[in-house]
Parts: sequence; structure tokens; C-alpha cells
Amino acid sequence: MKTPAAYNLLKVSSRAPHNVHKEEVERELRRIRQDLVELQERLYAENRRSVLVVLQGMDASGKDGLIRRVFSGINPQGVRVDAFKEPTDEELSHDFLWRIHRKTPGHGMIQVFNRSHYEDVLVTRVDNIIDDEEAQRRFEAINAFETLLQQAGTTILKFYLHVSEKEQRERLDERINDPSKQWKYDASDQGKASQWPQYRAMYEDVFAHCNPPTCPWILVPSDQNWYKAYVVASTLRHALLEMNPQYPKAKTERPK
Amino acid sequence: MKTPAAYNLLKVSSRAPHNVHKEEVERELRRIRQDLVELQERLYAENRRSVLVVLQGMDASGKDGLIRRVFSGINPQGVRVDAFKEPTDEELSHDFLWRIHRKTPGHGMIQVFNRSHYEDVLVTRVDNIIDDEEAQRRFEAINAFETLLQQAGTTILKFYLHVSEKEQRERLDERINDPSKQWKYDASDQGKASQWPQYRAMYEDVFAHCNPPTCPWILVPSDQNWYKAYVVASTLRHALLEMNPQYPKAKTERPK
Repeated sequence: MKTPAAYNLLKVSSRAPHNVHKEEVERELRRIRQDLVELQERLYAENRRSVLVVLQGMDASGKDGLIRRVFSGINPQGVRVDAFKEPTDEELSHDFLWRIHRKTPGHGMIQVFNRSHYEDVLVTRVDNIIDDEEAQRRFEAINAFETLLQQAGTTILKFYLHVSEKEQRERLDERINDPSKQWKYDASDQGKASQWPQYRAMYEDVFAHCNPPTCPWILVPSDQNWYKAYVVASTLRHALLEMNPQYPKAKTERPK
Repeated sequence: MKTPAAYNLLKVSSRAPHNVHKEEVERELRRIRQDLVELQERLYAENRRSVLVVLQGMDASGKDGLIRRVFSGINPQGVRVDAFKEPTDEELSHDFLWRIHRKTPGHGMIQVFNRSHYEDVLVTRVDNIIDDEEAQRRFEAINAFETLLQQAGTTILKFYLHVSEKEQRERLDERINDPSKQWKYDASDQGKASQWPQYRAMYEDVFAHCNPPTCPWILVPSDQNWYKAYVVASTLRHALLEMNPQYPKAKTERPK
């Protein structure tokens, strides 16, 4: 399988630019979070559109920590997080988007997917559960699905948390040695770590096929947690400012 | 809006062919229902594929009666019927396929949709809730959605219960006069009946856009209830025979 050079993850930096300083970024992140609180309130009150944040990344890329850092201050009534783990028997007895579609955001909501439908063209391929033809069909289904959501008023932000192979290895080692992180460790982590190149190839294929200008991936340098949170939060703020949600005029109006 | 002549419903008979006799057909229907009982059992036991029966038709085309006639004898554990009525606020706050996707069949199931996602390109257009551009986007979303289901092992049978304008008018009048049918009558029925031509045009447009050879509409002459039930039941039997579901060899195997 060939991927265009543009999607060579080895050439994408996994670290913050050198001229960016941690203290400044963390100060800016606090400001952004305050803005997000207000923007979320307006989105919820407007009750006409929604936001879907898709978080993907290899094991130990820091999805859980990111969710905590970015979304903690926001009113949980308007933010929902769902993690997609190994599918249940009932989920497996439906098409791969069935369990995903159930969790898409209704009007006014910010929905975060901790892993997503993209796992069905990632882990399933690395583990040889589906072949390239099925992957191709799923790419098309995903593109149509995301278009459907967008047409119904959902802004989709797809983040790939990019960690280097070396950084991932260090984090997985830490899980073994740090008592506060051991609960995250399971025996399969070591196997997965050694699959970094395989996952890299499958991610590159996703970027080649499910990356229309209308719904692009955002590659987030993620070796440093402070920078990663800043990039995601500022991208979300930017998207919400573009949406510019408005408090409704009359309380008696119902959403269309 | 133009539709190809092939989809001119005025040229499609709404009555059984003359050489078909009610008594014979009803005898045959009983046989078919016995076959369906066994085929459903095998589908359920196999637990690898599913069937989706989509029932569409104008008001008073007899969808409820058809469901009773065709599916009554079958084990209800393997058959589920869902009716899609006016969407709730929560449903309206998602894309139009959200509530539909939740109800698609899992492996082993026969799912009947009494009305369906097609209402979102029918009543919504007759009532001018969506414009032609939105309808076009929805046609494409529907085609992608049905392809997704088929690729996951669902056989889709889409039936249009075709009643003539005259027959519909008589049935709606009967609802007013027959005490056992008055509960079905509501004041909007009279308005809808006069919209037969508008619905006809919108159905013809559906047949022009959401009718791929891989997922065709079956137009069912439906002025006579006995014939309509026979056509739907025999089409379902034919589809299940083609699928040829098998009892699994070992009970310990899990579905993939």
C-alpha cells in the first residue's frame, strides 16, 4: 500500500516548535479555557448546531489527559465524552458505524470521541481482521457519514495526537514503573508498542482517504502534554468562534 | 422536477393481475408463512446476517394490516417492528438517519420499518420543510447508508405499497364511517388524501434517485390486501432462500 509523501508521519514533528515556551502556552491555555466556557454556553443556548471532537492517537499518546486538560472547566451538561473500546457482541452484530452514530451530538452539544470509528480502519487492519478492500469500503462509508453529520449542523474536528516511537516507548515503560500509572498498563501494551510502524502506515492511509478539505485531520505534536492541550483547545476555540453561536431571541421558540 | 417515464406511478397497476385468484393466493400465502417460520429460525440461529424490510406507502395503503398478515406467525424474538412517526425533539436535533440507524437489525434479526428514512424525503418535501437541494443531499446519504448496511450483512427489501388515488379516497372515507377504523382517522387525513399527486411526484423522485440495482424498490399493487400480503411475503421468502441461512455447526462458536 502506498501513501502520498504528504502523509509521511516520520516527517511530521511530534514536538512543539522551538520558539514556543511552556509557561506562555499554559497561561494562554487558561485564557482559552475561559473562552471555551462562554462559547459552550452560547452553543448550548442556541441549540441549533453541535461540535464533534474526534481524538485518535496511538497507545500512550495521552488522550485521557488531554480530555481532562481541555474540557475540565466546561459545564458537563453541554459536553459529553464517550470512549470506544473493544466492541460488544451486540455492536459487532451491526455495521461498524452503528455504535458510533448513536453517540453523535444533538444540537447544542460538544461531543468528544476518545477513539472513534477510525479504530475500525486501524486496529482492525493491524490485526488483519479486515482486508484492504473492506478498508476501502469503510473509508467511503466514513466520508459519507461525516458529510451527513456536517449537513445536519455538526462541526467535526479530527485530531491525531502524534507521538514519536521513542516517546511512546518511554511512556509505556513508565506505566510499568509508576504506581499511579500501572492501572493503565496491560500486557498487550508491549506488543502494541512494537507495532508503531504498522499503526503509522494505517494512519497514513487514513489521512490519504478520509481527509477531505471539508473535514481535514489536524496533526497535533503530542510528545509534550502542555503543547498538545494548547493546540486542541485553541483549534476548538477557533472553530466555535467561526460558528459564532447566538443566544436565541425568544425563549418560546423551539429548535427547527 | 422531472422523473423518467419508468417511474410514472400512473402507469403502474395498483391491482392484482386478472389471472390471479384470491383463494389460491391466500392458500399459497399460508404455505409461504410456514416457510418463513423455518427460514427465520435458521437466520436467527446462524446469527451472521439480517434482513431489513422497509414499508412505504401513502396513508391508508395498509402498512399495519400487511405487517399483521405477513409476520404474525413468526417467532417475535427474531422479528422486530418499528414505526417511525413524527420525530421527537431529540431526534430532530440529530441528522435524519440517526433515529433510523439505532433501529437497524443486528445479526439474526428480521427488522420491519413501518415508514422509514424515506419519510425524510417525502412528507418533508410535500410540506416544504426541505428544498430540492437538501433532498438531493439526503438521497446520497440514504444510498451510502443502505450500502453500509448491506456490506455489514443486511439484506434490504424496500416495498412501496401502491394504492390508486381512488382506492385511497375510499379507504379514508371508510375510516370516518366504520367504528372499528375511526381510531385511525385524524383530521389531517383529508388534507393528505388531496395530496396524492404531490406524494406521487415525490415517490417517483425517490425511485429515480434511491433505486440502485443492488437495492431496488419493489412496487406492490396494493388496492387488494390479500394480493399485497402475498407479494411481500413471497419476496421475503425468496430473499431468505437466496441467503440460505445455516444452523451453526458448533454451539461454542461466537459470531464474528
